[in-house]
Amino acid sequence: MNIAILGYGTVGRGVDGIVRANIPGVEVTRILELPDRLTNPRMTSNYDDIINDPSIELVVECMGGIEPAHTFIVRALNEGKHVVTSNKAVVAAHFGEFAQLSEKNDVSFLIEAAVGGGIPWIASIEKARRIDEIRSFSGIMNGTTNYIIDSMRRDDLDFDVALGRAQELGYAERDPSADIDGIDVANKTIISACVAFDVDCVHDLPVTGIRTLTKSDLDFFAARGLTIKLFGRGESKEGRYAVAVEPVAIPLDSLEASVPSNFNIVSLEGFTVGPLKFYGQGAGSLPTGNAIVQDVIDVQCGRKQRYDFSRGLEYDPALLMGDYIIRSTVVDVSTEAWAPGYWLLRNLTPPQAREMLNKVQREDASAFMVALQQKG
Amino acid sequence: MNIAILGYGTVGRGVDGIVRANIPGVEVTRILELPDRLTNPRMTSNYDDIINDPSIELVVECMGGIEPAHTFIVRALNEGKHVVTSNKAVVAAHFGEFAQLSEKNDVSFLIEAAVGGGIPWIASIEKARRIDEIRSFSGIMNGTTNYIIDSMRRDDLDFDVALGRAQELGYAERDPSADIDGIDVANKTIISACVAFDVDCVHDLPVTGIRTLTKSDLDFFAARGLTIKLFGRGESKEGRYAVAVEPVAIPLDSLEASVPSNFNIVSLEGFTVGPLKFYGQGAGSLPTGNAIVQDVIDVQCGRKQRYDFSRGLEYDPALLMGDYIIRSTVVDVSTEAWAPGYWLLRNLTPPQAREMLNKVQREDASAFMVALQQKG
Repeated sequence: MNIAILGYGTVGRGVDGIVRANIPGVEVTRILELPDRLTNPRMTSNYDDIINDPSIELVVECMGGIEPAHTFIVRALNEGKHVVTSNKAVVAAHFGEFAQLSEKNDVSFLIEAAVGGGIPWIASIEKARRIDEIRSFSGIMNGTTNYIIDSMRRDDLDFDVALGRAQELGYAERDPSADIDGIDVANKTIISACVAFDVDCVHDLPVTGIRTLTKSDLDFFAARGLTIKLFGRGESKEGRYAVAVEPVAIPLDSLEASVPSNFNIVSLEGFTVGPLKFYGQGAGSLPTGNAIVQDVIDVQCGRKQRYDFSRGLEYDPALLMGDYIIRSTVVDVSTEAWAPGYWLLRNLTPPQAREMLNKVQREDASAFMVALQQKG
Repeated sequence: MNIAILGYGTVGRGVDGIVRANIPGVEVTRILELPDRLTNPRMTSNYDDIINDPSIELVVECMGGIEPAHTFIVRALNEGKHVVTSNKAVVAAHFGEFAQLSEKNDVSFLIEAAVGGGIPWIASIEKARRIDEIRSFSGIMNGTTNYIIDSMRRDDLDFDVALGRAQELGYAERDPSADIDGIDVANKTIISACVAFDVDCVHDLPVTGIRTLTKSDLDFFAARGLTIKLFGRGESKEGRYAVAVEPVAIPLDSLEASVPSNFNIVSLEGFTVGPLKFYGQGAGSLPTGNAIVQDVIDVQCGRKQRYDFSRGLEYDPALLMGDYIIRSTVVDVSTEAWAPGYWLLRNLTPPQAREMLNKVQREDASAFMVALQQKG
């Protein structure tokens, strides 16, 4: 099977290397790159060379960003080519459209690499759903923020120093907003909800990151047997679903608290299978390349992947109602102080909590918010 | 597709319930049970009623034990019926024979439920192997012993009290030897090695359980930032492989240390994907039933599962060489005391360590042995 790779960055190079070394019967015959980077006879900067080549059955998109990735994926699907992508931003923004086009053109649209890097997360949700409804999912879906929090705890670093280290190691971009403000996790949460709940998930979910997390917040919670991780979460019940991205306080002796460095862990809960958790490298050339190549092999083996979001679940953030802590030494946030400067807010939905944080941050930009994990 | 269930205990009932509630196109038409337990018109105590029924395409074996399970599986495969089993003892003992018969008769032999209950462990090894060689696997594969150790730590219980609780909850048998002496983990380790390394794994691997573990051992290691879990492990390198079952000392802040109650966690390491870990319910009616039904659905979807152990890896326990601690206040085990009564032994293979423990236990039956986890 001949395939093309769009984008020859970290992930594209990983895919190319893995296919060449390990996958008989698959060949990367074309690579789309910028005009000034055509270092290899397989490379072209003209997408028409790929789209008009009938020998290419599958296109691997790992350019990132919305455009031109969106247009390129649409054209490939309409041309009857399977598409495999690691691009969470474009999938989160256009999953419904891609799903329809893949159905209409009878080709597969595969996204394992878009969430959780090398972790077989999307495939595991799909497999669990053959038997169970997925009641909920949650987890650490961003390695950069996990690395930052882990370094703050283990090496007793301030947020900015830990972020600087993550940037030095290449775990964080020069502009780290997508990671530390939760935007990357929001994309992965949307995609996970689409697959887990069979719904074209809302895009305006409540999103809170860890930009204002301090070392003393971690110390404060550690003294209470808790630590903080940035979670993407989804829940579904009785024809409704909810999603949220926010820091969550979890027991220090939980699996999630023990996740080191830039690793990810994601969980799902089904009625018969109970809770399942999956841990691994959430990013990187080879792990993400591995996930893409797994999708390619699935197509090679004749697997058909179609998504259908016509189930019509209703979005209801009340499903994720819970208690929150907002830390502000400037604003009296609630009538109930958990401890000096840490205010307890009971029974808020994630959007209500996010709105409250917005209000507090207008007066105290350093305010921090965390959800208290619900029991059971 | 019509299927038969052999054995209507916890797991058999789980399979029956899940198939009826969730799996269109599959019907449990016959159930093999003892003559005095035929409570349902589908039940028979005569295996010929199943084997001679050409409408039955697949047999689910969940009787446990070696015989008559072994004979029944052989007959089903030879009759051209697919076999799905949760019976780790019979698979560990006869995997090579079953693999050959499944190949010869062009039917599938599926064993997801035999290791790790509801965790998609066997399927994950197989999937990882489509791209990577598996370098190593390890993990907590027995919920009973994890429950005992977890209760000893969390509730400050003596071994016997924790074991009694496990028995009350139905996690441990009246005769708990198979769990606490590591025999159950040995079967699961053999099966995992067969799948991970494509080898008909040796049966006389070194096996040490936790029968002599005490609360003060756990306190002693906790004071050093460590805890103890019973691990099954396998490693493969340069045409060789090794397997072992033994208690391992691991950091308190590792994922494995955080595994609560009777849950399991299993890990594999591949070159491109890196480390992957899978966590879930390792036993129980519905989780184990779920794993069996996943295998049944795979057959329904036309998946062919064949195993081939002709790769000829050499068994070499030196691959798992490492340092050990033996606790004995009676015997001077080595020249190097790690602490009073805790003796350090450097660079032993697991069989050498097991032999040393045997020697010590002839004089001090309460002696306990644990492997120190190797770095990296």
